[in-house]
Amino acid sequence: MKAYEVVRQHIEERILAGELSVGSLLPSERDMAADFKVSRAAVREALRMMGAQGLITSRVGAGPNSGTRIAGQNGPALGRLLQLHVALSEFPIDDVVEVRVMLERLSATAASANATSNNLAKLGDILAEMESDHMELEQFNDLDTRFHVAIAELGENQFVTVLTTAVRQALASPIREASDELPDYQRFRRDLNRQHRRVFEAIANGDAARAADLIEEHIRTAYAILPMGGKKD
Amino acid sequence: MKAYEVVRQHIEERILAGELSVGSLLPSERDMAADFKVSRAAVREALRMMGAQGLITSRVGAGPNSGTRIAGQNGPALGRLLQLHVALSEFPIDDVVEVRVMLERLSATAASANATSNNLAKLGDILAEMESDHMELEQFNDLDTRFHVAIAELGENQFVTVLTTAVRQALASPIREASDELPDYQRFRRDLNRQHRRVFEAIANGDAARAADLIEEHIRTAYAILPMGGKKD
Repeated sequence: MKAYEVVRQHIEERILAGELSVGSLLPSERDMAADFKVSRAAVREALRMMGAQGLITSRVGAGPNSGTRIAGQNGPALGRLLQLHVALSEFPIDDVVEVRVMLERLSATAASANATSNNLAKLGDILAEMESDHMELEQFNDLDTRFHVAIAELGENQFVTVLTTAVRQALASPIREASDELPDYQRFRRDLNRQHRRVFEAIANGDAARAADLIEEHIRTAYAILPMGGKKD
Repeated sequence: MKAYEVVRQHIEERILAGELSVGSLLPSERDMAADFKVSRAAVREALRMMGAQGLITSRVGAGPNSGTRIAGQNGPALGRLLQLHVALSEFPIDDVVEVRVMLERLSATAASANATSNNLAKLGDILAEMESDHMELEQFNDLDTRFHVAIAELGENQFVTVLTTAVRQALASPIREASDELPDYQRFRRDLNRQHRRVFEAIANGDAARAADLIEEHIRTAYAILPMGGKKD
């Protein structure tokens, strides 16, 4: 194991053991080098890598907030990282679809409980735009992602929203490619919109069980039609 | 935006757009520096960071496999990263629990479909060990994590297994701390084991609906008893 890996692994293990939490101050570069019997360059390398992962944050100077600390995680950074990993993962597409169905059932259920005419406006606007007479694949695919993310946001479970966004975004490009091979994309788009409209109405009516079943049916139907070869890779 | 961030963001966007996929060769350091109008040091820094995230891999030399390529993602690396981020996340504990319930319902359902006396042996062994007369919190918590991960593995959905492991591991330390505050830990442990045994039996009987309901009830009961303050942070 390389010297910087020793440092990195040690810090990660202390995070997972709960010994380091958000805001915890790490020892100085000099002290860590001495503790781990590695060079200060190795400590710097480990800290740079953990900085790249968004796990630590450094502030220079001599004030009370200076030094290297464990960083609080924000949804977007975690989401982006997850999205990249899922996009490059070699998970079978069916495995990813099962996770997506499960996440979106949860979102649709929670959205139905939270829906008010006020917070439904955004979802309604996206839907209305999707229902335009004609629309190219690229633009529709973007709106489709936004539609599903907006349902997750209505559900107000932040972790579900991060996961849903990552999974839908990671699938955006394979979905676009598969859609491109359909003989009649505009017909497929109209079918999707009918399904989206029914999901929207169930959420607006606060009918959680129906909303969850409809969104599951919508996702499964779409994957059954799209020529994704049953495998994502 | 720093120079290396420009490079990094560009490569990430090409991955998400599906233009770069596993095995794709990146241009040379020199070409990227020219394309992005940044220094070669900035390109190196971007590549080092993406290497730290497990997104790219470099091979030196002049052979056909040399150069920097987009890396295939393996479950453990993604799992570890996710685990660290969830451990440091400030998601409300209730949000994380809902995701956990959903993942484990899916695992229990799939495990029930796949269970044979052969592949159940590992789960049975973990359970038997957990049912020992006396066991300290630390050891039991580790076995408990292994029990839930083993159910996910039986389900054979790799993405679910990665997510379940990350969520359960990220919660291991808060669960341990909360368990430490219980007036009678051994009694709590016996209750958990009765629940684990019932889940095991439902899976062994191939009763998917019952296994899913029992594992949900088990998780919700445990969180209701543990003094985690309703919030993870």
